[in-house]
Formats: sequence, C-alpha cells, structure tokens
Amino acid sequence: MSVSAPSAPIDKPRSNCGVVAVYGHPDAARFAYLGIYSQQHRGQESAGIVSGDGRQLHRHVGRGLAADVFSDAQIFSTLTGHLAIGHNRYSTTGASMLVNAQPILVNLVDGPFAVAHNGNFTNSGLLHKQLADEGALFQTGTDTEVILHLIARSHAATLSEKIIQALREIRGAYSLVMMTKDRIYAARDRNGVRPLCLGKKDGVWFVCSETCALDLMRADVIRDVQPGELIEIGPNGMLSHQIEPCPARYACIFEFIYFARPDSRIYNENVDKVRRKLGKNLALASPADADIVISVPDSSNTAALGYSRRSGIKFELGLIRNHYVGRTFIHPQQDMRDFSVRVKFNAVRGVLNGRRVVLVEDSIVRGTTLRQLVRLVRNAGAAEVHVRVSSPPILAPCYYGMDFPHKGELIAATMSVEQIRTYLECDSLAYLSMEGLMNSVSCEEGGYCTACFSGEYPILVEDSIGKLQHEVL
Amino acid sequence: MSVSAPSAPIDKPRSNCGVVAVYGHPDAARFAYLGIYSQQHRGQESAGIVSGDGRQLHRHVGRGLAADVFSDAQIFSTLTGHLAIGHNRYSTTGASMLVNAQPILVNLVDGPFAVAHNGNFTNSGLLHKQLADEGALFQTGTDTEVILHLIARSHAATLSEKIIQALREIRGAYSLVMMTKDRIYAARDRNGVRPLCLGKKDGVWFVCSETCALDLMRADVIRDVQPGELIEIGPNGMLSHQIEPCPARYACIFEFIYFARPDSRIYNENVDKVRRKLGKNLALASPADADIVISVPDSSNTAALGYSRRSGIKFELGLIRNHYVGRTFIHPQQDMRDFSVRVKFNAVRGVLNGRRVVLVEDSIVRGTTLRQLVRLVRNAGAAEVHVRVSSPPILAPCYYGMDFPHKGELIAATMSVEQIRTYLECDSLAYLSMEGLMNSVSCEEGGYCTACFSGEYPILVEDSIGKLQHEVL
Amino acid sequence: MSVSAPSAPIDKPRSNCGVVAVYGHPDAARFAYLGIYSQQHRGQESAGIVSGDGRQLHRHVGRGLAADVFSDAQIFSTLTGHLAIGHNRYSTTGASMLVNAQPILVNLVDGPFAVAHNGNFTNSGLLHKQLADEGALFQTGTDTEVILHLIARSHAATLSEKIIQALREIRGAYSLVMMTKDRIYAARDRNGVRPLCLGKKDGVWFVCSETCALDLMRADVIRDVQPGELIEIGPNGMLSHQIEPCPARYACIFEFIYFARPDSRIYNENVDKVRRKLGKNLALASPADADIVISVPDSSNTAALGYSRRSGIKFELGLIRNHYVGRTFIHPQQDMRDFSVRVKFNAVRGVLNGRRVVLVEDSIVRGTTLRQLVRLVRNAGAAEVHVRVSSPPILAPCYYGMDFPHKGELIAATMSVEQIRTYLECDSLAYLSMEGLMNSVSCEEGGYCTACFSGEYPILVEDSIGKLQHEVL
Amino acid sequence: MSVSAPSAPIDKPRSNCGVVAVYGHPDAARFAYLGIYSQQHRGQESAGIVSGDGRQLHRHVGRGLAADVFSDAQIFSTLTGHLAIGHNRYSTTGASMLVNAQPILVNLVDGPFAVAHNGNFTNSGLLHKQLADEGALFQTGTDTEVILHLIARSHAATLSEKIIQALREIRGAYSLVMMTKDRIYAARDRNGVRPLCLGKKDGVWFVCSETCALDLMRADVIRDVQPGELIEIGPNGMLSHQIEPCPARYACIFEFIYFARPDSRIYNENVDKVRRKLGKNLALASPADADIVISVPDSSNTAALGYSRRSGIKFELGLIRNHYVGRTFIHPQQDMRDFSVRVKFNAVRGVLNGRRVVLVEDSIVRGTTLRQLVRLVRNAGAAEVHVRVSSPPILAPCYYGMDFPHKGELIAATMSVEQIRTYLECDSLAYLSMEGLMNSVSCEEGGYCTACFSGEYPILVEDSIGKLQHEVL
Repeated sequence: MSVSAPSAPIDKPRSNCGVVAVYGHPDAARFAYLGIYSQQHRGQESAGIVSGDGRQLHRHVGRGLAADVFSDAQIFSTLTGHLAIGHNRYSTTGASMLVNAQPILVNLVDGPFAVAHNGNFTNSGLLHKQLADEGALFQTGTDTEVILHLIARSHAATLSEKIIQALREIRGAYSLVMMTKDRIYAARDRNGVRPLCLGKKDGVWFVCSETCALDLMRADVIRDVQPGELIEIGPNGMLSHQIEPCPARYACIFEFIYFARPDSRIYNENVDKVRRKLGKNLALASPADADIVISVPDSSNTAALGYSRRSGIKFELGLIRNHYVGRTFIHPQQDMRDFSVRVKFNAVRGVLNGRRVVLVEDSIVRGTTLRQLVRLVRNAGAAEVHVRVSSPPILAPCYYGMDFPHKGELIAATMSVEQIRTYLECDSLAYLSMEGLMNSVSCEEGGYCTACFSGEYPILVEDSIGKLQHEVL
Repeated sequence: MSVSAPSAPIDKPRSNCGVVAVYGHPDAARFAYLGIYSQQHRGQESAGIVSGDGRQLHRHVGRGLAADVFSDAQIFSTLTGHLAIGHNRYSTTGASMLVNAQPILVNLVDGPFAVAHNGNFTNSGLLHKQLADEGALFQTGTDTEVILHLIARSHAATLSEKIIQALREIRGAYSLVMMTKDRIYAARDRNGVRPLCLGKKDGVWFVCSETCALDLMRADVIRDVQPGELIEIGPNGMLSHQIEPCPARYACIFEFIYFARPDSRIYNENVDKVRRKLGKNLALASPADADIVISVPDSSNTAALGYSRRSGIKFELGLIRNHYVGRTFIHPQQDMRDFSVRVKFNAVRGVLNGRRVVLVEDSIVRGTTLRQLVRLVRNAGAAEVHVRVSSPPILAPCYYGMDFPHKGELIAATMSVEQIRTYLECDSLAYLSMEGLMNSVSCEEGGYCTACFSGEYPILVEDSIGKLQHEVL
Repeated sequence: MSVSAPSAPIDKPRSNCGVVAVYGHPDAARFAYLGIYSQQHRGQESAGIVSGDGRQLHRHVGRGLAADVFSDAQIFSTLTGHLAIGHNRYSTTGASMLVNAQPILVNLVDGPFAVAHNGNFTNSGLLHKQLADEGALFQTGTDTEVILHLIARSHAATLSEKIIQALREIRGAYSLVMMTKDRIYAARDRNGVRPLCLGKKDGVWFVCSETCALDLMRADVIRDVQPGELIEIGPNGMLSHQIEPCPARYACIFEFIYFARPDSRIYNENVDKVRRKLGKNLALASPADADIVISVPDSSNTAALGYSRRSGIKFELGLIRNHYVGRTFIHPQQDMRDFSVRVKFNAVRGVLNGRRVVLVEDSIVRGTTLRQLVRLVRNAGAAEVHVRVSSPPILAPCYYGMDFPHKGELIAATMSVEQIRTYLECDSLAYLSMEGLMNSVSCEEGGYCTACFSGEYPILVEDSIGKLQHEVL
Repeated sequence: MSVSAPSAPIDKPRSNCGVVAVYGHPDAARFAYLGIYSQQHRGQESAGIVSGDGRQLHRHVGRGLAADVFSDAQIFSTLTGHLAIGHNRYSTTGASMLVNAQPILVNLVDGPFAVAHNGNFTNSGLLHKQLADEGALFQTGTDTEVILHLIARSHAATLSEKIIQALREIRGAYSLVMMTKDRIYAARDRNGVRPLCLGKKDGVWFVCSETCALDLMRADVIRDVQPGELIEIGPNGMLSHQIEPCPARYACIFEFIYFARPDSRIYNENVDKVRRKLGKNLALASPADADIVISVPDSSNTAALGYSRRSGIKFELGLIRNHYVGRTFIHPQQDMRDFSVRVKFNAVRGVLNGRRVVLVEDSIVRGTTLRQLVRLVRNAGAAEVHVRVSSPPILAPCYYGMDFPHKGELIAATMSVEQIRTYLECDSLAYLSMEGLMNSVSCEEGGYCTACFSGEYPILVEDSIGKLQHEVL
C-alpha cells in the first residue's frame, strides 16, 4: 500500500534511474518535476531538471529527494520554457558526485544539448578507450558522457541523424531522454530492456519511465517507446525514427518483481496484476500449513495478497514499517543485535503470537535483512515461520542497469536452498520457480531478460570489466 | 503496513506529542533518541533530548524529524549521562518556535530541571493569569511553563512534594516526563487521558507514550503509569507517589482509532486488535454490496482488513501511498484539481476498474481529502464507491490535546450523513455507531473520553478560551 | 582606516554589546538593522531585532553577523511595524546559546515586552538568588532576565513606574533599550558607564550605542541619554524620567582606547580626536629614536598617526591585515610557529627592511599576539622594534561589561614593564601614563572609570562571584 | 593597512584569479589552502583544491571564501597526498557555476589531470570552434577546457610534450598550474602578462600568483616563472621547459595599481614601493592647495601616503571602511541616496570638517562609487575636495584577464577630465599621466601592458567576440 521508504530499502538492488520529458506546456519544468517526484522510487540520491525556452537551456540539479532539491519555488522561475527533461538517480557517492548528476548539459556544435539516462551500456569501456585514444576528453567516464562524445563526433547532416549514428554504436540497456533548445528526443535500446512510455494530454507530450508519472500529470498513456525507436518531438509534432531493428525484446523482468510501482503499467502489463500472479503461482507450487500470510512491507504486499488469495490462508498486517528513517540514521549502539532492521520494521505481537506464519518476500539478495526479519517475527511469538519468495533465486549480477552485488555476495549463488533456510532460521523456505515466474507474465510482445536468475546474458557484455570505475580518479 | 508519511496526513488531527524517559544506562540519550524516533508519528515538527550526568543537564532540540535533528553523531558526545528525557512535538509554526521546543530546561532553586509534555491543561489560562498577576514572568505561555512556575513557587520541603503540589493545581490532560540532574519523574493526569507506560531491561528504566518505543529499545513492558500517579526513579530505585486519587478514567479513545501505532499496546489493549474490531463491527452494522474492500493507507489498513474479514469481501490494495512527500512540496499548478491528494495517493486501475468498492477510512474531519480520494477511485474505473468510516461522526473539538479544527470546520457538526455522502460524491456512506465503537474496546479498567463524538466533556474546561494563544505575542 | 576583521581581534576584550531602538518609521526594523550593522564591531556572535506594529511584537534572532542573520529579505516582511529594537552580542558559546540571544521577548501582565542590554550588573547574583527564593523561574540567568523578573514583580501603577522601580534595584553598568507594542524605552545606569545616545530625523527617533549608527541612518545626533535617565518614546512623543540621581559619572575610558569606532562621538567627544591625542601624548612622554612609525591595523591606526605627527617620525603602512579570516579557520599545522598572527597580518618587507620601527598598539591584554607581531616585523628586516602602547598597563579585570581575562592572565598584572619588554622581544617598550591618558580626554562632564588600569572600582561589586555562571546548567 | 573587504569592492575590476601549487610535503593540500587563503583578494566567488597521493587525485571545490569552503577539518582528511594545486576565482554567477569551479579534474589517456588558470586567451573562440568542429565535447566553454582538449588531442610522446604542444596553440594571457598523480606543472604565457612565482622551503616546492602566499607558508621566493616557461616538478626534481621564446614581456601594470597585495613582490618589484611612487609622481605633477590627504581605504592607502609624503600635506584617516558587509546585504530602503557607499564607508567628521581635502583613489572605472564618496566627504564638512587618481584614465577594456565593463561604461572613455570632475562634484580632479605611471615602475626586465589606458593591445585579440559566452547556454 506504500511505495517505499525515504531511504533505500535494505539489501535490495538500488540503481535503476528514472527519466521524464515534457514538450508543449508553458510550465514544462513543473511537469518534469511531477514526473521525477512520481518516479522517486527509482532513485533517491540526486534529482535534476533541464528546461528549454526555444533559445536557451536552464539546469538545476541537486543531491537528495526531488521534493527537497526543488523545495524552493524560485527555482522554477529560472527553469522557464515549454520543454524539459528530468532525472532521478541512485548514484555512487563522493565529493565529485554533483559532476555526475543528471541531466547533463553540454554545448554541441549544434547548440546546447541535455541528456538523462536509465540503463547500462555493455560496451562503454571499449567505446571510452577508443574515444580517449582519439583525444576525447572525459570529465566523468559515465555511459552518458560516451553518448555525448559519439554525437559530437558524428559527421551526419542533422542532429537526429547524429543521434541515431551514435546510438547504433552502443550496446546494452538504455532508456534515454534528450533535448535541444526546441525539441526533445526519447530513445530505447533495441532490446527494450528498461521501460519507457509515451503520454499525451491537451497537446502536451510526455515521456517517462513508468505510467504512474503520467497518472500524476493526468496524461493519457499513448504507447511504449518501442525497442530500437528514437522519438523526436518538436515544433512539427512527433516523429518516429528507427535506430535499428529490434532483434528480440529482453524486457527486465525484475521491474515486475520489485522495482516498478504497483500502480504502473510497463511492457503493456499492469505491475500489480503480474505481482499478484507471482504470489498465486508461488502458493500453488509451494503451499504451507500455516495460519496467516504476512508480507515484508511495502514491496511484497501485492505478492503476499496473491499468496493469501490462492492458498486461502488469511492475510494479516504482521510487520509495521517506519517511514521516518532519515538520511543518516545514527545508530545508538553498534552492538545492538538486529538493529538495522528493527529501526525500519516492528512486529505486531497481537497478530503473530502463537501463529504459524507465511512470510512473503519479493526477492533475496544477500539475505541479511530477511534473516533479521524472521527473527523479529519469531520473537513476537510466531510458532512457525515459512518464508516464501515471489521470485527465483538470484544467481548472477546484472550488467543492464541494476546494482546487484558481486556474485560472491549473492546468497543463492553460494548456498543451496536448504543452506539458505538454515541461515535464515526459518521453518521452511521456497522460491518461485522459473516456470512460475514466466507463467505470471504475458510475453505477448516477446521475451524478457532473466539473466539474474538464469545467468544467461541475452546481450553480450563486451567490456571485460563490466562497468567503468567512474568516481575514483 | 506502514506507519505514516514523513509529513502529516492530510485532514487529520495533528498535535498529540510523544514523550520518553530513560534512567540507568550510560548512554541514556541514545535510548531516548530511539524512543522519540519510534514515536515520530506523534509529532513531526520538532524533536529534543535533555540528558543528565549527575552534575549537569545537556540539551539539544531542533526543528524537524528526530532522525534529522540528531543526524550528527557528535551531538551525542555532548548529551552525556545516565538519564535522559525526550520529546516529539507537532507545534504551531512561527519564528519563535524554537523557544517552545521541548524538553524545556530551566534553573530552579533546587537545581537544573527539565520537562516534556503531552496533553493539554483545561485551566492553564486561569493559572497563567493568576501567576502573572503574582509577578511570574512567562516566556512562552505554554502549559509546560505553567507547571514550572507552579513548581518554582511551591514551598514544599522536597522537590517531589513540590511537583505533587504543582500537579494538584492542574486540571486536564497530561503525560509528563521530568528530570533533575540525578533522577527522572513521570506523571499522568488523574483521568489518564493520554497514554504513558513503564518499561525495564537489564536494570534500566524506560518511560514512554507507546510500547512501540519499548520494542525498539528491546525493553519489557512493566505496566502503565497509573492515572494520578507520579513515578520517581533515582539512585534509590523506583518510587510511586499518588498525586491525587483517580475519580474516573477517561482514556482518549481516538488514540485507538487513528493516533497510536498498530504495533503498540495502550491502556492495556493491543491497538491492532481494537482497530480490527472497529472494522468488524462496522461491517456487521453497515454491510455493502461490493466486490472489494480497500483502505486509505496506512492508518486505515487494519480496520479495512477487519471489515473484509467480517464481510467476506476481498481485501485489495487499491490505493498506493507515496512516502516521498517533502517538507515543502512545490505545487506545480495552483489550479490542478485534486492535486494535493494525488501527490500522496495513486489509484491502481487494474484493481479498481469495473469493481464495486468499499473504501474504509478511519475518521472524517473536514472531508476534503476523502472527497478527492473518492473521485480518484472513481476515475480509476470503480463502478461504485461505498465509504465506511471506522469511527462515529466527529461533532466537537478536543480540549485534551488533539488539534481538531473549530466546530464550524467539522463536516459532521454541520451536515447530515446524507449531506456528507452527497459532498463526498460516494454511492453510500456509513459511520461506525457509538455502540460499535464501545463494543470494540475492553473497558475493563474504566471509561474512555469520547467527547469528540458525543460533545460531552468529562473534564471541565475552566478556561473560557479553551487554549492560550501562545505564539502570537 | 578599517573598522576591524570579521572575527574578533586576537587578544582583545570582546563582550560589550551594541543596542539600537527606532520609533516612528513604517519600516522601523530596517533602520534597526542599519543600526546593528553599524555597531557590528561591538559584538559578532549573534544579532537580533524585535519590531512592533502597535498590536504585536515580532522577533528574529540568529547567530553570526547581522548581515548574515538578516540576509533574507523575507525576514523583514515579518518584522513589520513602526517601532523596533536591535542588539549585537558577543556571547558565550554553547548549545543553549540561542536561548540567550537578544532582544529577549516575554509576556508581561502589561502585554508583550522586549529588552536588549549592554553592560553588566554588579548585584545580579544577589538579585537572582533573592528572586529564585521567591519562586521566580529563570531560563537563562542573564542580567537581562533579572530585569524582567523585577519588572514583572513590581506593583507600581504604570509600566514606566515598574521599569523605574526595577532599575532602582540594579547596580552596575547598563545601557538598555526596551519596547512594548507601542512605545520604546531607553535607560542608562546612574554612572553612565556605557555610551547611549539619542538621534532624530524627520520625526523618527533613534537610540543607539554609538553615533556611527546615526550616520548610516542619516539621523542627527540630539544628545546622550543621561546617566540615570529613562527615556520613553510613544504616541505622545518623548518623555524623560529620572530613575535616580547621577552621583558621579564613570564613563568607560576603554571605549576611547579600543572599542568605539573612530568615526563615532561618545560622551560628547570625538573618538578619533581622543585616540589621536593618546598617540600624541604617548610620543611626548615616550619618544623613540626611529625611522618610521607603524600601527597594528586597524584599531591602532589613529593613535599611530598621532604619534607620528607629534614625533615627526614618518608614518608607514608596515603591516597588512587580511580581512578574509572565516569564522572557523582551519589551521593547517598545529606546530606552525606564530601561525595565528600570520594568518591575520603580513609584514611589508620593503617598508620595514633595515628600518628602526616604532610599533604602536592600543593596549596589551595577554601580550601573546603582540609578541608574534614584533617577531613578524623583525623577520621582515626591521633593525629595531620599539613598542609604544597608547594606554596604561591593564592591571585588573572589568566588572562593568568588558570581557577581560582573569587577573592571572593579564600580563601587566604579573610582570614589570621590563619583563614584558623581554617577553615581547622588542628593543624598547613604553606605555602611556595615567596622566597622559587623562590629558587626552575632556572630562568636562565628569569622570571616567579607569578600573582596569588602576584597580580602583568606582562602583561596588556586590556579587562575590562577579558574574553568574549562565550557560552551564 | 587592510587588504580589502569580504565582498568585492564597488566599481572595481573583479576577475583575475589566483593559483597555487605545492609539491613535496605530506600535507600538500593544507599548504595549498594557505596559498588560496593568502590570495583571497584575487577572487572571492569560489575556491578549490585538488590533491594527489601518487595514485589518485582528490578534489574539493565550493562557492565562497576559502575559509568558508574549507571550514571543515574533515575535508583535509580526504585531500591526502604530497602534491596539490589550488584556485581562487571570481566567476560569473548562475546555477551552473559549480561546473566551472576550478581546479578542473578530468581523465586523460595519461591518467587523471587537474588544472587551474588565471588569465584570458585571445584565441579561445577560434580554438573552441575548431575543436568543436572536430567533435570535441565542451561542458563549459571556458579557456581552461580548451587547454584540456588540446592536451587530450595531442599525439606527442610524453605528457610534458603534449602540454607544450597545446600551450603553443594558445595566445593571450595565462598563468597556469596543472597536476598529474605524481607531478605538478606551472606555465606562464610568452608575454608574462599575469604574475607567477616559484618558492621553496625545506625541499618543498611552491608556485603561486603572488609572493604574499609564500610569506604565509614561510617559504623563500626563488624566482618568477619566466614568460614562455613550463616548469615541471616531480620525483626527479624541478625541470624547466621552454614553451616558446618570449618575444616581449607585457606584464599587466594594473596589478601594481590595484590588484596585487602591497606586501607582495611581483615582476621583481615590491608592489608597495611602486604604489608609493605612483602617489609621489601624482603629487609632483598634480599638486593641490589643501590641508589634508586622505585615501579611499584600503587599496589607495599606499598611494595616498606617497602623495602626502611628496606634497608635504598631512595624511589623515578621513574615511572608515566597514569590513562586515555580508554576501548579500539587504538594503533597507531602495530610495536611500548614496546608500551602497555609505554601508561600506563612513566619514570622520572631526577629521574632515572645515578642511580642504585631497582624496586619493587608485583608479576610476565607472565613477559611480567615487561620486558618492566625494559627497560623503563633503557632507562631513570638507571645505574643498580635490580628487587625485594614482593611475591614468581607463579608456579601453582588458582582453587579458581583467573584468572591466564595456567601453561605453568606462567614464574616461566617454567624458573629458573636466566633465568627469563635474560628474564627481569635486573641486579639482587630476589623473596620473602615462609618464608618471611609467616612471613609477622599473621596466628593468622589459615592458608592461598598458592597454586599458592606451587602447593599444600588444597581443592580438583573434576572437572577434573577445570572450566566449560561457554560462548562458
């Protein structure tokens, strides 16, 4: 029932930014703000907007939540114009962090140009080396900067063609929004890994990562930006370019499991519906002899409800989440056992005491948090704790935009299910199977990327190092 | 499943602070911090702690959430000592606000003395006038300052007796924690209006408004501080004094309906259990011909679940709450219809579309928010919307600590149920009856204050103005 | 040529606040701001203003320089009204510091009342004890709070009489400004220790510590507030009350030597003229066989010029002062010799090299800074360094408002002139004599307090402890 | 006697940054901090340091004074290593300002590289266009970024050769410091327009704009970096490269008149001595029948003293400067005549009243401030005001690093001396002649740039626009 807490959830992948673009409203920046506010769950470290008024681009970026970065109304008096793009980011930390804050704004020969990015390239290391050898000057080394260099070096006749030429050199996952002083662009990689959708209302165009942003702007969902498509919106309306053909769609299935908001519709499916099916299929394959079903709020609520519905076991509110966790919570005692989870969750003894409990969690990365939650539930009097996970075991890191830890830190990559059960100290443990996962989604438009569960990477990772080391110069 | 949002909920009573006291741990201030962090839902405007080391008292207060006010670990290096008290406050705003931040620290003839307060006196106007006429100098005019003057003027032999003498002059609602340089005090008014409980762990004593704070500290619940009791904890252990006999208990029943956290136990009852009974009794008396039950998250979750269980209608997650609302959210467009509710809630179309919906809300103050929520649910495709309120109509303001608006702004004080239904634009509307309310609580220890529903004030309000005008000097 | 640096000068008395009051201008607070800005040299730790509009009082105080505390124009939109008082303060530090920030605003029976204070009472300890025994509640224990309690307890018929009655109980030094919602008051102790003057322009009344504030406001100097006088300005114009007769004037002579700005006129004398005479008399009595005269900028500039004029030795700019020292300068190396003085001053080698130098300093407290300056001058090539001090040796602490250290830290209280010369490592050292000092001032209106030079305290210090320990509760 | 005020002086050229480099001390960053602190008068808008520890570079930059940007000691715990460079900047304002803060840190193929710059290129527009046409991606468009692109594109064998190759393409004025992870570089343009000097102490090397920085670090002045020289300091000691031969030196003569600190030695001359000669030559050529000489503090102090000495007219302290002006001073009344100058300066009536005054000012740009100062002096009772300017009339803007306004705003470019006298409302006005100016400097090493006085630009300005428009994208 809640999106998620001010600070990132414990032991969950982070990264996976959000983007938004607006064209055609005199207060475009204010709508871009609504967009990044709605997509706050996709990145809490920095927020930024660039607006354009036909002559100039204006930029404001800052660290923290969108509502804090844009808390001063005067900011919007400088972000004038009828077009804008925005960005939420979970960034690595460090003093030079603001240099990397998006959208990035540069001067091309064609004029000022801004870009914001969600995803991860799989050949940025190669491209970076090649560009640097040719004398390109990198300030950040981010994927986004690679795009800009490629555009700047293109000799194509028009900016649109330069962008297409640049994007053709890129491999991997990207959902991009870009802007010049009088038009916006939106592009999605040829495999459609990250979501990106198009909306419209009263002649104003919107592009955003998730449809929940369109809801707040009261815009209608038009359609997804297609894999391999570059959309251009300007004074002459909307144009669709094909960057390259879509060989196969590999939509990130983890967006359904954890990332996207349940009220969003991505890849033409309601997140809520898929998430409920995950719970139902989990109940079918892995029933439990229990009295109540509870969820780890808030991301597992819908799956837990699905489990309850299919199993017939009562759904209860057994864990309470505290949403007041500040940015830097001072831990009163270093040695206080289970403290980091207790500060976010409390168990409701009256609900749990003496009951046999099914605890539904959407996914397990390291298992550290879940172990403490199991203990919390048991200390509140639960007679038995049966953990049910609404996704398969995570076996491999992601190279397409999610910030999973290295393989050695993924509990399912190093332990059997029984070993994990012992570690979690629960009475039984079951994961959703790959079949159960695939039966929960429609697949009508093509396939999904399930690399984190299967270890099979559908898109070649050309960079041996996987990811550039940006921050440490 | 969630406590509530960083900023205060829309159209809900606010005020109603939280207090905590700790005795006997070398890092007492850090435990006081855990206490005010756990009780953050009771007041989000300011937070403060005073600690004592046997010789001096140390104070840190600030505006905002506890996690922000105490975000710097160095603060705790100044808050030394083995005893501490803390406070959360929802204060009126204004430049002089910090003067009123609690705990207040003063110098008595007996030495430094600090106090923190939850409640509202009903004779503070009279006492204030009387004290001022005698030459007492008021810096704030708050209830808390009245107590201090009464203590300072008492000629009793010991400080404990001075406190008792002072408290005997006070009428109304209070749960107080106080401290000298080597002992803490906790007092509850003779009618026990506000909750206050006692906990212990490994020889360390704790006093707090709600038991959820004891859970985070891993302390055991000992018992409630009794109506009319003054507890003193110092080098010689715990002493209980009787301020005056308890003529009748009038525990605030609204704590069960909305204020307290569901994982707390107050007045010897689990909040969660009572809240679920409210939903069940509501379902019994006011059924609805509907497909699904949804709640206004998060405060109505438990009641909605109770309604669903008793009625047999499926519980669904139809509204998503955004917890990222900042302190000062910039509204992008003043004329955007329903914006203030849309920025906090989004409807899940896949759940609501074509369904007949029961929308459970815990209480209605002005009705402005609920009206927008009904519209939001209907716009998401709901075929019918049946509002069910898990408390009786609010007819009268509170003089015992809750910050309700004036009678003229209470929708139920000026409209019939049918008029309210028309205003809310819902298909049907039903409130819980007074009988349904009283059947949900145990009453085993005595009575409750239901003045906001009945208009019958069990404690005489001696001040004609009800409340002092503090801030505007 | 410069007033002084953003941070307090090294090894100088600090304290000694500034006050201002304005009556009769619709933007009174803005003029009060000009006043405290002009008097910034009298206190750099906090600044505050209270304004009144005939109905309410409005307050804004903060830590730091006036220009920083009032850097937001919106502050003035809340400080409305036609009367205002302001204060600069050099305060003791600590977490509870803002509680002590002035002006203090309280609620008397007569209505809201604000006060700001420059000076030090000599019987506040006695009064505090007496008031506390009678049940008065102290939040700060400052002199200012003592005044307020005395006023609150007075049973006189009118507020003016209450103030007079209160001030009659007070001994020591004070220049006070006070205000109700529609009138201002200004009072000066019966010995006239601290300056306080009255100005007027276009029907608007001004009261301030120094006339330099009147210059910025473009107001005319009317006259000094007289020793023992209470001035009341309200709807009916200006009234003068006599608190008590002036037995003898004891104006602080150190104001001429160091504190006051050279462009001010205090005690009916130009500070600049007196300061120059100090230098001239010093040259007469203590000549030096030297090539150039230099000053320790900026406070000794005028005296150095006087010394140069009378001695015929060329005045040169041999030391450069850096005014960019921040609030908390990070010292790069703890062991860097003479660093604290070098960070503020640099010697001009081209001026000093090979020269016999007279270095004029206004006063010596501990001598630590001057010792490093002598070394700095010598390292820049000076052949000889002759220190000339334009005041007599400081032998005793001040109980009337200046923050000198304890006697044991005053170099002249523990060493002979020759010992000091050896410590300072200069070739010769001479102080101005008491005769030279008294010949520099006019004395026409009465006497001066010279206790810090003579150890003879003209006003009895009734408190054995001299000063209350405020901050440490 | 004072360097200058926290905020930039009114109506003076601003720009003209300061640079510093340190090699060979384990706390190199702390010495770099001393350097930028000492050179604060060269730029007050931002400050930054990059340090290197042989493996990585670490950067901290911020807006404001060095003492504020580096007020937190923890910053230095991250700026580790034995080499560092630093920068003071007066930058144009705007949201994107921090992007332009120096030192800039980028990743070259050769590794991390940082640069800080004082000066202005005269062909950066051409270079920028040429580089952009070749696909170079500009984030700022500053001169500094142009250097970096040139280095990145060079195919020379070593980094030193790349730097030399890059600098050979640049025309105009520059004093640069650069660093890799284990060596520092310092370069000065072939005409030696801006100062740059080399110092050493105990095996540690220092490079800085002015020798006053070496004084604070207690380092010895070794020599100037020569026009056209590139110095490289690394593990193998100090190497000198010749970028290109020095065709003729054109040292900026305005550094002597206003910019440099009087305690510095630049171009092998003491600033103090030159500045005094300016005053003496002014007195010789333009005597005045007057009683006293006063200066506009602090920048004109030395020249005024020189005028006084040569003319025999007494030097007096007639104007007092307030150094407490904050960053954003709130003007209390928009219509207050002469307010902006009165808030910084006050006249000493006792000095000026009835006197015929020579007012010495170092230079006149627009004349707006000086006009108000003349009025201030006259209002304080001066019988006559004779303005003497210790530099020739400023007729033309600077393209080599000083931020003069456009020609149309230069008062001497549009008015005759008599017209200016009338505008200033003074009794007489005289400027120093070009001959007087040139007689004040030694010229022993070559010539000076006097373009702002003569309009003759010794270095061709290849960019038609003179300067890139950086900030407005």
